[in-house]
Amino acid sequence: VIPRYTLPEMAAVWSDESRLRHWLRIEILACEAWSRLGRIPSEDLDAIRSKATAMVDRVAELEATTNHDVAAFVQAAAESVGPAGRWIHFGMTSSDLLDTGLAIQLRGAADLLLAKLERLLAVVRDRALEHRETLCVARTHGVHAEPTRFGHKLAVWAFELARDRDRLRRAREVVSVGKVSGVVGTYAAVDPFVEEHVCRELDLAPAEATTQVIQRDRHAEFMSAVAITAATLEKIAIEIRHLARTEVREV
Amino acid sequence: VIPRYTLPEMAAVWSDESRLRHWLRIEILACEAWSRLGRIPSEDLDAIRSKATAMVDRVAELEATTNHDVAAFVQAAAESVGPAGRWIHFGMTSSDLLDTGLAIQLRGAADLLLAKLERLLAVVRDRALEHRETLCVARTHGVHAEPTRFGHKLAVWAFELARDRDRLRRAREVVSVGKVSGVVGTYAAVDPFVEEHVCRELDLAPAEATTQVIQRDRHAEFMSAVAITAATLEKIAIEIRHLARTEVREV
Amino acid sequence: VIPRYTLPEMAAVWSDESRLRHWLRIEILACEAWSRLGRIPSEDLDAIRSKATAMVDRVAELEATTNHDVAAFVQAAAESVGPAGRWIHFGMTSSDLLDTGLAIQLRGAADLLLAKLERLLAVVRDRALEHRETLCVARTHGVHAEPTRFGHKLAVWAFELARDRDRLRRAREVVSVGKVSGVVGTYAAVDPFVEEHVCRELDLAPAEATTQVIQRDRHAEFMSAVAITAATLEKIAIEIRHLARTEVREV
Amino acid sequence: VIPRYTLPEMAAVWSDESRLRHWLRIEILACEAWSRLGRIPSEDLDAIRSKATAMVDRVAELEATTNHDVAAFVQAAAESVGPAGRWIHFGMTSSDLLDTGLAIQLRGAADLLLAKLERLLAVVRDRALEHRETLCVARTHGVHAEPTRFGHKLAVWAFELARDRDRLRRAREVVSVGKVSGVVGTYAAVDPFVEEHVCRELDLAPAEATTQVIQRDRHAEFMSAVAITAATLEKIAIEIRHLARTEVREV
Repeated sequence: VIPRYTLPEMAAVWSDESRLRHWLRIEILACEAWSRLGRIPSEDLDAIRSKATAMVDRVAELEATTNHDVAAFVQAAAESVGPAGRWIHFGMTSSDLLDTGLAIQLRGAADLLLAKLERLLAVVRDRALEHRETLCVARTHGVHAEPTRFGHKLAVWAFELARDRDRLRRAREVVSVGKVSGVVGTYAAVDPFVEEHVCRELDLAPAEATTQVIQRDRHAEFMSAVAITAATLEKIAIEIRHLARTEVREV
Repeated sequence: VIPRYTLPEMAAVWSDESRLRHWLRIEILACEAWSRLGRIPSEDLDAIRSKATAMVDRVAELEATTNHDVAAFVQAAAESVGPAGRWIHFGMTSSDLLDTGLAIQLRGAADLLLAKLERLLAVVRDRALEHRETLCVARTHGVHAEPTRFGHKLAVWAFELARDRDRLRRAREVVSVGKVSGVVGTYAAVDPFVEEHVCRELDLAPAEATTQVIQRDRHAEFMSAVAITAATLEKIAIEIRHLARTEVREV
Repeated sequence: VIPRYTLPEMAAVWSDESRLRHWLRIEILACEAWSRLGRIPSEDLDAIRSKATAMVDRVAELEATTNHDVAAFVQAAAESVGPAGRWIHFGMTSSDLLDTGLAIQLRGAADLLLAKLERLLAVVRDRALEHRETLCVARTHGVHAEPTRFGHKLAVWAFELARDRDRLRRAREVVSVGKVSGVVGTYAAVDPFVEEHVCRELDLAPAEATTQVIQRDRHAEFMSAVAITAATLEKIAIEIRHLARTEVREV
Repeated sequence: VIPRYTLPEMAAVWSDESRLRHWLRIEILACEAWSRLGRIPSEDLDAIRSKATAMVDRVAELEATTNHDVAAFVQAAAESVGPAGRWIHFGMTSSDLLDTGLAIQLRGAADLLLAKLERLLAVVRDRALEHRETLCVARTHGVHAEPTRFGHKLAVWAFELARDRDRLRRAREVVSVGKVSGVVGTYAAVDPFVEEHVCRELDLAPAEATTQVIQRDRHAEFMSAVAITAATLEKIAIEIRHLARTEVREV
């Protein structure tokens, strides 16, 4: 992400701090679940809950040695807790963290985009009504074709933006799934209750069946929805730029 | 489309014959609407209904001169009718035909894909249940990792195929829209009732607001849904090919 | 290829007739080589040379049964010759035909593109000199920025077109390679002299080492060169369209 | 760039420090040229040469206000010099820095890639000769087809890597061009000698004719060459992974 072109709140969603905070939250929730299952003693859970942290600098330092981001994180979190830290990541695999954490980030990004899109849609809709009688020219290949209304142009955009919003909403749902099913997704070393608990607390749906990872069709749908929205915005921007040309000066 | 890799029924959806048949249907329905509005005399409508045809060869012949596919079609259809043929395309613009016809073709293609997908999904689901206890090995980077069940592998595919089907169903809806709003979409020369009638008879929704064309975000969503489905199928195919390697021979 | 947007001479390069003609040429040249090696009797070679044909219709008919284009072609060619037809495709694999034939077609396409590009470059260069003092305005984001010369704009295009031409020339060379090395490229069933003879007669370089196919980096370079040229042409076309806008009318 | 997957020397080419260092070099060289033309007094040039710096932190601080990277850099460089700093960026436009600096970075990246590629090519060539008689199996769709030599497989890769290297070398040349021609590339406010001097000292060719920017076909050729090389490497990596499968264990 290039800082100059990134909203601070979007940068925050994708920051290392956010990622590590989500991972830590997942680990603590997993320990809670194991504790309810009688696997982790309550004093250990208390230690984990009260002490566990994962600082960006420490993880980076360990990653320089391990060359594996999740391993470095688990080590950092464990050492912050002390002896009870050995329960961190119990029964889990890297993708349980990577993919569940990514789901939280994607949902956060979707929420930001949806809020912006709703606001834009409202503005365009209002302007469309305001200019429903404002005459202007419709062009074909840049050459004047027929008269139209400026409000009509805006209404076309408003309906398209509404479809973009609907696609983004569905995409938000489809990526809001978590996974704590362990290596190759078979629950061989992890009780399904752990996944259930972690996902419930994070307001994610548990993925129905997975391999080592959550299936990528979900992320593909998300990227498609974002890409189609971006294409709408680009189209609007190009048209506005044309209408602002020195020789046109319509807007 | 490469004949060897195309299902005959899919080739039929995209054939020149189908396209011209849809265009003719749209023109006749538009004439019906104009007739109800009192604009086209009923004897002219009768002539149009009973005589209008548009043969591929004749259209190709005219297109060689006009260099414009819709103009060639309109001329061919008009001359097949005789004097009343002058009503063909009355008040309309090329994109009214092009985009409404395309909607019928895309819906037809979606129906074929959905039927195949439902069948595949049912087979994979059945096999998943059948092999729910069949042990096999899960691999990471092609190297044996952990035991899993063959039915588990299939279940992952089944759930993904079900999502693909849902995406295709929604994409089918979003492209099932027609447009008969004339040049630059302003209904300047065409009564909105014409669009309403044409779309109702073709079981399409009228596009809410358009420029000269139906907005392309609809087609982009369709292509995304098809592309994501294709990626699922490719993934399954690659895995099956691996399992069929001389050294593996699992399937 | 869409007929309306395709030059007839480019369509001819890619027609089924051309493809089959190239394949037949390759087969006959291979038989010549085998004959010089003493493997094919001279009367058989005479029969092949004088009678071998491969008609599009007959190949299509056989392909409907075999479902394999090269197999259908070989059968059609063989039956056109009679008993000596059994030598057709002797020691060869499908890709020997497919890839060597494709090389001839790509070279043909490159020649057409290069001829057009040279002509365009000459025109733009002449106009650049003609308008070296014609004042016009340079725009940034469509808004007037600074005065420039129309000839300067054209000179920028001319130099870019010259680079496009150079890239296409190199791409033409890199795809002008043939292969007659048999299954998986090992010459197990075919003498290297066959490849040498076929390539020499077709003015292609023999590929240095291949698998079953000629390596695809060659085709990727070709497509890149075409794509970059197309981007230049699109840029020029968009600029000209802007300059022709109703409100601008500079060209 | 993701640190874990980036060579330190490649990260250095693209660091903010490198970019600012190149920009400063360009500015100082431009001042030298202006001084030779008698436009900048020699004591001012001395001040610029001895004092000019552009620290990443200071530029970032200013950019937070100006929201324009080049403006922030010019201000930082000017204030580091004192009164004579007003000559920094004299007659120039942002793209003179951006594009000339980018050329230096692309050339640096190309040099690193070429060095790695040469080394890889040498290793693959040596192994190809070493294994010229090592029998192995060639597969079609993962199924055993015919015997081949492992050295043959490697030779195919070696020849392809050599073509990749040639493409990268040419791409290195085509991006090694600078531009100091001022707003919209007309030399209205800058003497062509400035461009000549800057480029000569940086060992870049001056771009023949430009708009505000250096033409992007150059960068497109560079990216194509990198992409085709990456495709070769991916192909080799996938093959090696296959050959390392638990059931295959050939390598």
